[in-house]
Amino acid sequence: MEPGGDAARFGPGWAARALPQRLMLLLLTLLSGRGLHVAAAASSSSGAAAEDSSAMEELATEKEAEESHRQDSVSLLTFILLLTLTILTIWLFKHRRVRFLHETGLAMIYGLIVGVILRYGTPATSGHDKSLSCTQEDRAFSTLLVNVSGKFFEYTLKGEISPGKINSVEQNDMLRKVTFDPEVFFNILLPPIIFHAGYSLKKRHFFRNLGSILAYAFLGTAVSCFIIGNLMYGVVKLMKMVGQLSDKFYYTDCLFFGAIISATDPVTVLAIFNELHADVDLYALLFGESVLNDAVAIVLSSSIVAYQPAGLNTHTFDAAAFFKSVGIFLGIFSGSFTMGAVTGVVTALVTKFTKLHCFPLLETALFFLMSWSTFLLAEACGFTGVVAVLFCGITQAHYTYNNLSVESRSRTKQLFEVLHFLAENFIFSYMGLALFTFQKHVFSPIFIIGAFVAIFLGRAAHIYPLSFFLNLGRRHKIGWNFQQMMMFSGLRGAMAFALAIRDTASYARQMMFTTTLLIVFFTVWIVGGGTTPMLSWLNIRVGVKEPFEEDQNEHSWQYFRVGVDPDQDPPPNNDSFQVLQGDGPDSAGGNRTKQESAWLFRLWYSFDHNYLKPILTHSGPPLTTTLPAWCGLLAHCLTSPQVYDASNLGRVKYVPGESPPEIWELRALGENQEPLREEDSDFILTEGDLTLTYGDSTVTANGSSGSHTASTSLEGGRKTKSSSEEVLEQDLGVGDQKISSRGTRLVFPLEDNA
Amino acid sequence: MEPGGDAARFGPGWAARALPQRLMLLLLTLLSGRGLHVAAAASSSSGAAAEDSSAMEELATEKEAEESHRQDSVSLLTFILLLTLTILTIWLFKHRRVRFLHETGLAMIYGLIVGVILRYGTPATSGHDKSLSCTQEDRAFSTLLVNVSGKFFEYTLKGEISPGKINSVEQNDMLRKVTFDPEVFFNILLPPIIFHAGYSLKKRHFFRNLGSILAYAFLGTAVSCFIIGNLMYGVVKLMKMVGQLSDKFYYTDCLFFGAIISATDPVTVLAIFNELHADVDLYALLFGESVLNDAVAIVLSSSIVAYQPAGLNTHTFDAAAFFKSVGIFLGIFSGSFTMGAVTGVVTALVTKFTKLHCFPLLETALFFLMSWSTFLLAEACGFTGVVAVLFCGITQAHYTYNNLSVESRSRTKQLFEVLHFLAENFIFSYMGLALFTFQKHVFSPIFIIGAFVAIFLGRAAHIYPLSFFLNLGRRHKIGWNFQQMMMFSGLRGAMAFALAIRDTASYARQMMFTTTLLIVFFTVWIVGGGTTPMLSWLNIRVGVKEPFEEDQNEHSWQYFRVGVDPDQDPPPNNDSFQVLQGDGPDSAGGNRTKQESAWLFRLWYSFDHNYLKPILTHSGPPLTTTLPAWCGLLAHCLTSPQVYDASNLGRVKYVPGESPPEIWELRALGENQEPLREEDSDFILTEGDLTLTYGDSTVTANGSSGSHTASTSLEGGRKTKSSSEEVLEQDLGVGDQKISSRGTRLVFPLEDNA
Repeated sequence: MEPGGDAARFGPGWAARALPQRLMLLLLTLLSGRGLHVAAAASSSSGAAAEDSSAMEELATEKEAEESHRQDSVSLLTFILLLTLTILTIWLFKHRRVRFLHETGLAMIYGLIVGVILRYGTPATSGHDKSLSCTQEDRAFSTLLVNVSGKFFEYTLKGEISPGKINSVEQNDMLRKVTFDPEVFFNILLPPIIFHAGYSLKKRHFFRNLGSILAYAFLGTAVSCFIIGNLMYGVVKLMKMVGQLSDKFYYTDCLFFGAIISATDPVTVLAIFNELHADVDLYALLFGESVLNDAVAIVLSSSIVAYQPAGLNTHTFDAAAFFKSVGIFLGIFSGSFTMGAVTGVVTALVTKFTKLHCFPLLETALFFLMSWSTFLLAEACGFTGVVAVLFCGITQAHYTYNNLSVESRSRTKQLFEVLHFLAENFIFSYMGLALFTFQKHVFSPIFIIGAFVAIFLGRAAHIYPLSFFLNLGRRHKIGWNFQQMMMFSGLRGAMAFALAIRDTASYARQMMFTTTLLIVFFTVWIVGGGTTPMLSWLNIRVGVKEPFEEDQNEHSWQYFRVGVDPDQDPPPNNDSFQVLQGDGPDSAGGNRTKQESAWLFRLWYSFDHNYLKPILTHSGPPLTTTLPAWCGLLAHCLTSPQVYDASNLGRVKYVPGESPPEIWELRALGENQEPLREEDSDFILTEGDLTLTYGDSTVTANGSSGSHTASTSLEGGRKTKSSSEEVLEQDLGVGDQKISSRGTRLVFPLEDNA
Repeated sequence: MEPGGDAARFGPGWAARALPQRLMLLLLTLLSGRGLHVAAAASSSSGAAAEDSSAMEELATEKEAEESHRQDSVSLLTFILLLTLTILTIWLFKHRRVRFLHETGLAMIYGLIVGVILRYGTPATSGHDKSLSCTQEDRAFSTLLVNVSGKFFEYTLKGEISPGKINSVEQNDMLRKVTFDPEVFFNILLPPIIFHAGYSLKKRHFFRNLGSILAYAFLGTAVSCFIIGNLMYGVVKLMKMVGQLSDKFYYTDCLFFGAIISATDPVTVLAIFNELHADVDLYALLFGESVLNDAVAIVLSSSIVAYQPAGLNTHTFDAAAFFKSVGIFLGIFSGSFTMGAVTGVVTALVTKFTKLHCFPLLETALFFLMSWSTFLLAEACGFTGVVAVLFCGITQAHYTYNNLSVESRSRTKQLFEVLHFLAENFIFSYMGLALFTFQKHVFSPIFIIGAFVAIFLGRAAHIYPLSFFLNLGRRHKIGWNFQQMMMFSGLRGAMAFALAIRDTASYARQMMFTTTLLIVFFTVWIVGGGTTPMLSWLNIRVGVKEPFEEDQNEHSWQYFRVGVDPDQDPPPNNDSFQVLQGDGPDSAGGNRTKQESAWLFRLWYSFDHNYLKPILTHSGPPLTTTLPAWCGLLAHCLTSPQVYDASNLGRVKYVPGESPPEIWELRALGENQEPLREEDSDFILTEGDLTLTYGDSTVTANGSSGSHTASTSLEGGRKTKSSSEEVLEQDLGVGDQKISSRGTRLVFPLEDNA
C-alpha cells in the first residue's frame, strides 16, 4: 500500500478515514513496540482462562506482531541514524567552511544511499498479511464486525484496492515500513517548518517590500501555475502523439502540476544569504515570496482539485465551476489568514494583559499551545491549517513577541528552530529514500524534460515582467542582478514534495510525483551549489565576509545567525524615537524616513503603529493620543502603563566606551505599575541580569544587527558596516540609536556606528 | 470502544496491531481534518470518470468523514483549551503565591469540569458506524479484503468485541472522541516526563544518597507491592464473602495492582520543595526514589504479567514460573538500563570528540535524536523504552551535559522542560476528564477504602524499617521528620495512571483503574495542599524564604528554579580543585570531603571521577595519570587537551568587589588546541559573551546556587545562606570557589560566601 494511493482513489470520505490509520502503522506502532506487547500480555493473563483454546494461535500472532514492531522500530531508527549522520556531516562541512552543499542536499544524498541499500540489499519477503474475501451487499462500511466461529472481530476500512494490484504491490516488508503516510508530511512535518518561517520573518524588510512580495506571491504564482500547466498540457499532447502516454492525463492535472511545482523553497539559497549577509532587501523579497507562495500554492492546488464541472463530462471548461474554484480559493485563503491572525492577536492580548512574562515556562507553553490551536481551529472550520499557521507565525512575531519575556523569546525561537530543523531534514532525507523505495514511479523522459523547461519559463514569465511593473512604482528599484538572482533561486523543496506525494493514486499523479522529486533533487543540488559563484558573478552585495582564518568564536557566532531572524523589529523603535522627539502621534513624522517604501506599506504601517501596536503590545504611542477623544476611556484601558512611562521618561544617556550594544533590549522585570525610579534602580542593580538580556537577544533574538555588534566589540577595532541596513539608517537621519522595551527607553548616541 | 478494553482481551498480537489504529483516530485524524478532505477530493476529480456511479454514496460518506474530522479537531481543541486555562490559572496562583493547589491538581479539576459537561451536557448520539456480519473460517486475520459488488476494500482488524457489548458501548460520539488510546500515555507522553526527570536530577545529592535511594526504590517498591497485593487479596476475599464481587479477581491481579500503585510521583511535593528550598538531601531522597521506583514499578508489573504457570490451572503458585518472572524482571531492567547508559555514553563521546559545540542547533538536534533513539533501541530489543529513557537522561546529565555548549545546555533543558510540562499537565487533565468520560468504571467502595488503607500500610512498611536499617550505615542519618515527610509524600500520579489505563479489559482491571484514579485525585489534592503546613509542622529546614513583599524580579527568579535542576554538578569542581591543589589523581584526597557518603557512592565516585569523566567529558584528571602506564597511548588519545591546560593553568584570581558570581561557567569558545594565551585574551575581549554565559547558566542551568548568587548581588547586601549546601561546603573545607570549564579554570576566593 503505497502512500495514499488506492485509498485516495476510493473517494474523499473513505480516504479521510483510512489514511490516518495507515500513518499510524508506521508512526505510532513503532513507538509502542515492547510496550504494547506487555499490555497485551497483561490482558492475556487476566483473561487467560477464557481463551485457552486459542492459545497456540495467539502465540503465533504475538510473535508476528512482535516481529512487526521490531521492524517498525528499526525503520524509525534508520531515519534517526540518517539524521544523525547528516548532522555530523553538516558540522564537518560548516567546520571546513564548505558551502557548495547544504544540509538538505546532504540529507537527500544520505537518503538516496539508504534507499538504494533498502531497495537492492534487503530480501523481498512476501507480505505476511493474510487476506480473506467475502462478498457483501452493495456498500462498504467504515467498520465491519466479523463473526469468526462465535467470536466477533472489529475491522476498520483502510481503503479500496484496485483488483489488479491485490497481489502485485509491496512484496518487501522493509520497503513498506519505511514508507510514511503522505499526510504525515502535511500535518506533522510541514506546520513547524511553515510556522518557523513566519515567526522568523525579518519583519522590517518584509513589510518594507510588502507590495512586491505580495505581487510575486499571488500574481507570480498564478502566472507560473497557468504557464506551467499549459506548457505541460502541450507536452502531454506531444507524448500522446509519440505514444508515450499510457493512461489519462487531463488539463486539470496539468494545472494541478503547475500549482504544486510553483511552490518555491529556496532554503539553500537563503542559508547562504544568511551566512554571507547578502543584501537584506533581496533576502526579504526571496524569503517573503517563498513563504507566501507556499500558501498560495496549497490553496491553488485545492481550488484546482475542487474544479468539478457539473454533468458527466468533467473535463471541459465550465464557467460556473471555474468561478466556484476562484471563490474557493479566496474563501480558503482569507479564512485561513483570518484564523491565523486571530489566534495571534488573542495570544498577544493574553500575554499583554497578564503578567505571564514572569514565568517563561508558562509563557512558552501557552505560546506553543496557542500556535498549535491555530492549526486545529483552521482544520475544524474547514480551512487550511498550514496556511493559518503561517499567518499565525507572522502575527506572533509582530505582536506577541514584543510582550514575551526575554527568556521566552529565545525559548520560543529555539523551540521552533529545532522543530523546523528536524522536520526539514527529515523531509529531505525521506525524499532521497523515496526515489528508491517508492514503488510506483513513472519515469517519463519527455515529461521530465518538459517540466524542467516549463518551470524555467514559468519563473521567467513572472519574475521579469512583474519586476518591470513593480519598478515603475518602487523608489528602491529591483535591479537586474536581483532579478537574475530571483530567477536563479526558484528551487523547489518540501512543499512541492508534500503536495505531490499527497496523492499518487492515478497514473498522472505518479508521473507528477516522480518528476517533482527529480526537480527538487536537481534544483537543490545545482542551485544550492551555484549560489556562491552566482552571487559574486552578479555583483550582489554581501555583508561582512569573514576571512577564513578567523577564530572559532566568530565561527560560532556566525552560525547563530543562520536560520534565526536577524532583526528586532526596528520600525517601532525608530518611531517611538520620533514620538520621543515630540513629533506627535500622526504618522506624518514617520513619512520622511519611509519615503522609499510602498504606499501599501505606509498605509499599513501607520495603522499598525498607531492602533494595533499600542493595543496588542507594550510599545507604540499611547492610544489616548491616537484614538479620537470620544473613546478616551477605552483607549486608557487598552494602553499599557509603560507607554506613558516611556513618553515621560526622556532619555537615559548611555556612556560610550564600554562594549557598546546597538540594540539593547532592556527588560524591566519589575511590576508594571512600579514607579520609574524603581526600574531605574533595577537597571543599576541587575547588572548581570541586564547583560544576560543583552547577550541573549544578541545571540538568538536579534541576529544580524545584534550579533554584528557583538562581533564588532569582540574583535576590538573592526567596525565594518556594509549591510545596507546601517547605511539606510544613517540616511534616515536617525542620529541616535534608541532602545525601547517594556517601560524604559534608553537612547544611545551613535558614535560607534559611524 | 474504551481504551484498550476489548482489543486487549483479544490477545497480545491483535492488540498490538489494533491499538495504534485507535490512537490514530484521535491523535492524527484531527491533525488532518480539512487537509485530507482536499487530497481526497483531488483524487476523486482525477478518478471521477470511473466512479460516477457511486457519487451519491461517496458524497454521503464524505460528509460523514468531514463531520468526524471536525469533531476530532474540536476534541483536541478542548484539551488545548483546558491546558491554556490551566496555564493562566497557574500564573494567577503563582502570582498570588497560592501554594495549596499545584498545577497538576488544577489541571485535574478543569478536566473534571469538562468531563462533567461532556458527559451530561452533550446529547447521546448513537454511533454512526454501520456494522455488517459475515461468518468466516476459524481464524481472524489482520487484514481483510472484502469484495463489494466487484470492488475490493481493505479492512484492518481493530480487535475482538465481546458479543454482549456490541450494541451497548459508546453511544456518545463526543465521549469517544475525547478518549485517547492508553498507549499514547506510555509511548508519547511518559517518555519526555521521565527523560526530563533523569536529565534534571540533582546529581550531587542523588549520588551522595545513592545507596538509600536504591534501597527505597528496589526493596521499598518490592515490599510495597507485595504488602499491597496481599492486603488487597484479603479485601477481595472479603468482597467475595459479602457478595460484592461480580467477576474473577485473582491473586496475580492483586499483585499487579500492588505494582502499579507502588509508583509514587510526588510532583506537587517536589514543586513546593523547590520553591521553598527545602532540605536538599530530603529532596534528593524523594526525587530519586520516585524516579527510580517508576522504573521498578513498570518492570515489576510486566514481570507479574509474565508470571504464567504451565498447565491449565494458571492461578496457582509455580516455582519455575516465579523464577522466570524474577528473571524477566532482572533481564528487562538491566537491559533497559544498559540501553540507556550506552546511548548516553555514545552521545557523550560524539559531543566530546567533535567540535559540534560551535553549532548549538546541531548539537541540540543531535542530543534530541540520540535520546529518542534510546527509546526505539530499547523497544526494538524487547526492553522497556521508558526505563531506558530514564537512564539515558541520567547519563546525559552526568556526562554529555558537560560537553555541550552553554547555549545547548539551556536549549536542551528548556526543550525537555516544555515537553515535560505539557505532557504532565495533559495527563493530569486527562485524568480529570476520564473520571466522567471513561465508560466502564467499576466503583467498589470496599475495594477503594481497602486500597487507601493498603497503600498507607504498604508505604509505612517500607519507609520506617528501611530507614532504620539505612540509618545503621548512614553517617548523615535520615531523621524522624524526614521519614514522616517521606511517608507523607507517597503521592500517586502519571505513572500509576498510565499503568492502570493500559489495560482495562477485565472486570478486575476496571476496578483497579477506577481505584487508581481516585487514589491519584485524593493524594494529589490532599497531600499537595498539605505539604507546606506539613513542612513547618515537621520542622524541616526550608531555604531562603522570600518575604512576600519583594519585588517582581525576585518573583521571576524564583520561578526559574522550579522544575529546573538547581545544581551544576559540583563534585568534579570540588575535585578538580583538589587536583589543582596537588592532591594527585587517587581519590584518597577526596575522601576527607566525602566521609559522610555511603561506601557505594565512594566506590562509584572514584571510578567515575578517575576514568569515566576523563574519557567521556572534558573535565577530570588526565587519564595519563589515572590509568596504568602500559595504556599510556590510549590514555593520551582519550584525554582532551583542555585537561592538561587546566592542570598547568594555576589560578586566575578573580578581583572581588564587582558582582561576584559563585558559579561562573566560563566557556572558551575558541579552538581547543589554541594556546592558553589566546583563551586568556578571549576572556578579556568577549566581555558581553562571557557575561551572557554567566547570565545564562545562572538562570537556567545552574538554578539554586547560581540564582541564589544572582539574588544576592541583586539585593545588594543580603547574604543569607541557609540551605544546607553552603553549610556543607564550608564544612568540607572548600576555602575557594572553583569554576571549571572547557579549558579554563578560574578560582574565586570565597569572601562573599562567609
